[in-house]
Amino acid sequence: MTLAAGIDVGGTKCLGIVIDVDAEISSEHDIIREVRYPTPHASKLVDTLTELAIELGEVETISVGVPGLITLDGVMRASPNIPGSVDVAVKSELTTKLRRPIYVDNDGNAAALAEWRFGAGRGARNMWMVTLGTGIGGGHVVNGEVQQGVNGFAGEIGHMVVHPDGPRCTCGRKGCWEVYASGRGLRMLASGEPGENVIERARHGETDAVAVLEAYARWVAIGISNVTNVSDPDVIVIGGGVSEAADIIMPMIRRWFVETLYSPEQRKHPDLRIAQLGEHAGAIGAALLPRFATAT
Amino acid sequence: MTLAAGIDVGGTKCLGIVIDVDAEISSEHDIIREVRYPTPHASKLVDTLTELAIELGEVETISVGVPGLITLDGVMRASPNIPGSVDVAVKSELTTKLRRPIYVDNDGNAAALAEWRFGAGRGARNMWMVTLGTGIGGGHVVNGEVQQGVNGFAGEIGHMVVHPDGPRCTCGRKGCWEVYASGRGLRMLASGEPGENVIERARHGETDAVAVLEAYARWVAIGISNVTNVSDPDVIVIGGGVSEAADIIMPMIRRWFVETLYSPEQRKHPDLRIAQLGEHAGAIGAALLPRFATAT
Repeated sequence: MTLAAGIDVGGTKCLGIVIDVDAEISSEHDIIREVRYPTPHASKLVDTLTELAIELGEVETISVGVPGLITLDGVMRASPNIPGSVDVAVKSELTTKLRRPIYVDNDGNAAALAEWRFGAGRGARNMWMVTLGTGIGGGHVVNGEVQQGVNGFAGEIGHMVVHPDGPRCTCGRKGCWEVYASGRGLRMLASGEPGENVIERARHGETDAVAVLEAYARWVAIGISNVTNVSDPDVIVIGGGVSEAADIIMPMIRRWFVETLYSPEQRKHPDLRIAQLGEHAGAIGAALLPRFATAT
Repeated sequence: MTLAAGIDVGGTKCLGIVIDVDAEISSEHDIIREVRYPTPHASKLVDTLTELAIELGEVETISVGVPGLITLDGVMRASPNIPGSVDVAVKSELTTKLRRPIYVDNDGNAAALAEWRFGAGRGARNMWMVTLGTGIGGGHVVNGEVQQGVNGFAGEIGHMVVHPDGPRCTCGRKGCWEVYASGRGLRMLASGEPGENVIERARHGETDAVAVLEAYARWVAIGISNVTNVSDPDVIVIGGGVSEAADIIMPMIRRWFVETLYSPEQRKHPDLRIAQLGEHAGAIGAALLPRFATAT
């Protein structure tokens, strides 16, 4: 038994868990301890993470998944969803406070690792995890290695430009994929109606709601087609809010994927799968970080 | 001394060379033999490659770079620029004819390998090669390994969708990157005027021509920003026709790249470099294939 703590820093909460990384994680029951704190202003983030880690108790390793651009030495350069987050040295400050080595990575990479090891991506050789939440997170696992890129910034797929004259993204540019295919994007395509409403109405067959979901599914498909054209994965795991409406949205996404992928009839397609680990993916993946290699 | 033959199959010609893969290749003078044949109809391709290989003489290895979707076992599934190319078993047929093992890969991957080993990408840890020719070719070398993807189809970056309601691409979809950022794209943006004309007129300061090049450079930047957001490389090598007008176009591309990249002020940017091996990149890279590992 090797107890490992993983903490997932989200826009609203920090979710910490302890798992046994020698065992299989097949459901929430395999989570040994769980602690939640509201996410504070970035200036208090390290204090909160310190308290949370202490509350999680005795473990072998402590690891954190953080949203936004995270350098290879664990500095959060910028994270649109955490106020004040410019150059927060999460890894070095937390190491000092807790007096032990700390592992830090991007939350999208952590979630990808978790789904690859214990979730929908099991057995994949080349897997993308795409989290369609408030924004869009991405992580790429090839032959069991998380692809980091030279600065640690690989997988920022939400900011692929898919319509250069489109609406402005929170990042300042125009027509990023996230503008259309995130939870916010769904609401925009629905002229402000909350996504859950649209989904509920579409389930009841209301044609205007179905049309909005079709438009949304097309934008989702465009981004995952682009990722497929770039790296030809065997599995794409789709997580985030949309995965709770998989029954109605996934068939649409699959249909549009064939329309937007290059030469769809000449190739084996990646398996499009729904994420299985839900809100725990980021924390479980963080706990796994010390066990898995990362590649440039 | 290890003599290796590399053959690059292009839309108009097949270019075969022999190099010593134990030596440095620093200029055309290091090419030991060179043979050119017009590219035939796909039904005659293997015959032509056989003749060409025989004419190249005694060598240790024979390798071919082929455009389009190439499976990991060397079948050309489809190549828009070679008439009749559906399911041509280049590797197995050539192996039978020449009675020896043959290495086959996509021409974009081959060119990337050549520029990484002997050209503009020397020393890169995570390098994209982008060839802006009639279409767009791509190849990705990470830690000295060509990234193939699970079917061998990674690097098809020309077909990232960057404007879903844009003009139709030769592949049948709409608004692929190649529609705008290829040589054909430049001509389209110039309302049919040949690219060389526009470049020449822009060099003379004609404002309408400069405006066309700016629009073109923006499209080029959008695609290389997307690739950077996905995989965070340290070097992007730009080849193809545009590299001959680098003096005027590269400054524009660099400027637009900063406009289109996610969080440009928070990160080290990839080095944007001009390809150095010119029309020989594909053939040199093919010759190198037996020496370098490939990754899923």
